[in-house]
Amino acid sequence: MRYKIVFSYDGSQYCGMQIQKDKLTIAKVLNDNLSKVLSSQIEVTASGRTDSGVSAIEQVGHFDYDGDLPKNFVGYINSVLPASIRVHSVQAAPNFHARYDAKEKTYLYKFYVSKNANAYYDKFALHVPVCDIDKVKASLKYLIGTHDFTSFCASGTEIKDMVRTIISANIYNEGDLYTFTITGNGFLYNMVRIIMGTLIEIGSKGLEPEHMRDVIDGKNRKLAGPTKPAYPLILKSVSYIQ
Amino acid sequence: MRYKIVFSYDGSQYCGMQIQKDKLTIAKVLNDNLSKVLSSQIEVTASGRTDSGVSAIEQVGHFDYDGDLPKNFVGYINSVLPASIRVHSVQAAPNFHARYDAKEKTYLYKFYVSKNANAYYDKFALHVPVCDIDKVKASLKYLIGTHDFTSFCASGTEIKDMVRTIISANIYNEGDLYTFTITGNGFLYNMVRIIMGTLIEIGSKGLEPEHMRDVIDGKNRKLAGPTKPAYPLILKSVSYIQ
Repeated sequence: MRYKIVFSYDGSQYCGMQIQKDKLTIAKVLNDNLSKVLSSQIEVTASGRTDSGVSAIEQVGHFDYDGDLPKNFVGYINSVLPASIRVHSVQAAPNFHARYDAKEKTYLYKFYVSKNANAYYDKFALHVPVCDIDKVKASLKYLIGTHDFTSFCASGTEIKDMVRTIISANIYNEGDLYTFTITGNGFLYNMVRIIMGTLIEIGSKGLEPEHMRDVIDGKNRKLAGPTKPAYPLILKSVSYIQ
Repeated sequence: MRYKIVFSYDGSQYCGMQIQKDKLTIAKVLNDNLSKVLSSQIEVTASGRTDSGVSAIEQVGHFDYDGDLPKNFVGYINSVLPASIRVHSVQAAPNFHARYDAKEKTYLYKFYVSKNANAYYDKFALHVPVCDIDKVKASLKYLIGTHDFTSFCASGTEIKDMVRTIISANIYNEGDLYTFTITGNGFLYNMVRIIMGTLIEIGSKGLEPEHMRDVIDGKNRKLAGPTKPAYPLILKSVSYIQ
């Protein structure tokens, strides 16, 4: 039987989502604990990887297990998992594939604009000393739609098709703390962190909002801004057709 | 010369703001580092205490020092302080008193409403499995104004005057993550955490919004809800007349 599993994690202490040899990853901890509890070798396939240090409010995966789950399985698995990973639900889902069936993903990236660093915000948001937020907001519309995002893909990827569709991109704020939120049908390696680097360049280097359009059109990683750090990035949710 | 100092802290690793014998507090680290840098015994007086585990986005204090500060003092002091404390500004402020002159304080308390715990939110917000947010919001109006808040003061305090004025109390949200924000001319010991416990009781135990009015009128700590944990509480700002 195939099962769909929805879970969250504080990624700050992990080397990302997916299995890597000799590294502590979310997948390793999930697999080890599910395997122990179900007395069977379990391997979770997630909707996609998240980088080292990235957290998830709602990540989705699937795994195969020949049998019915014990009663109150969510409570049971949470009682053995570390507090940095919480399972929200597990349910039978025949033919479900967490990666192939994923329709949209939403990421958040938090930053704050202030001359001096703030010790509380630094725990979860990027410090940006100077930023013209109106220019940044005006540049977001160029991200929307179906584009070749070669400029926003870290080098070294094996993926050939760089075309992705961005459905929405917004920035909201609570005072000087801003949240960039972006929804798309998929994201290239480091794509949100490179978009963030480009947005900050527009806001802090006197560039015009149209710079974002030029970077996209140029299809060249060197045109985009730097890759911003991972810790302010959060996988908000993954949506499926069914 | 008297100096006004504005600073922030991640309170998670500290035993609160104020000096306590043999305990690591924000005041101890600030005093030790200011004293070292200025080669003089410095003691910071803050606008008020914050409990063990409570963070501050913007706390205000004052200290006395006979002399002018070195150039770029803010950068200098931040270079020796741990990253969990950041100084935003230091400026000469004759006759300023961080505690006596404080006019209003604003606190935030973060919580999320969800059947299951969320590993990301758990870092900074209280988990509330079930809550009727409309009832909670409807109860906030009873807090506004000048009241005797005896019901919301932890026992063991030496303070006799329990009258405080609440200027505003609101709840806003990003999805299922809520922020309770409250501004007043002063707060009793544990007052925000006890108000929070009372709000959660109204939202999760089928009580009516008017329960808040009855608890205030009763002037009895036993009528209010439990004291909620410290880590989701944040001192947002302190304002002064000048």
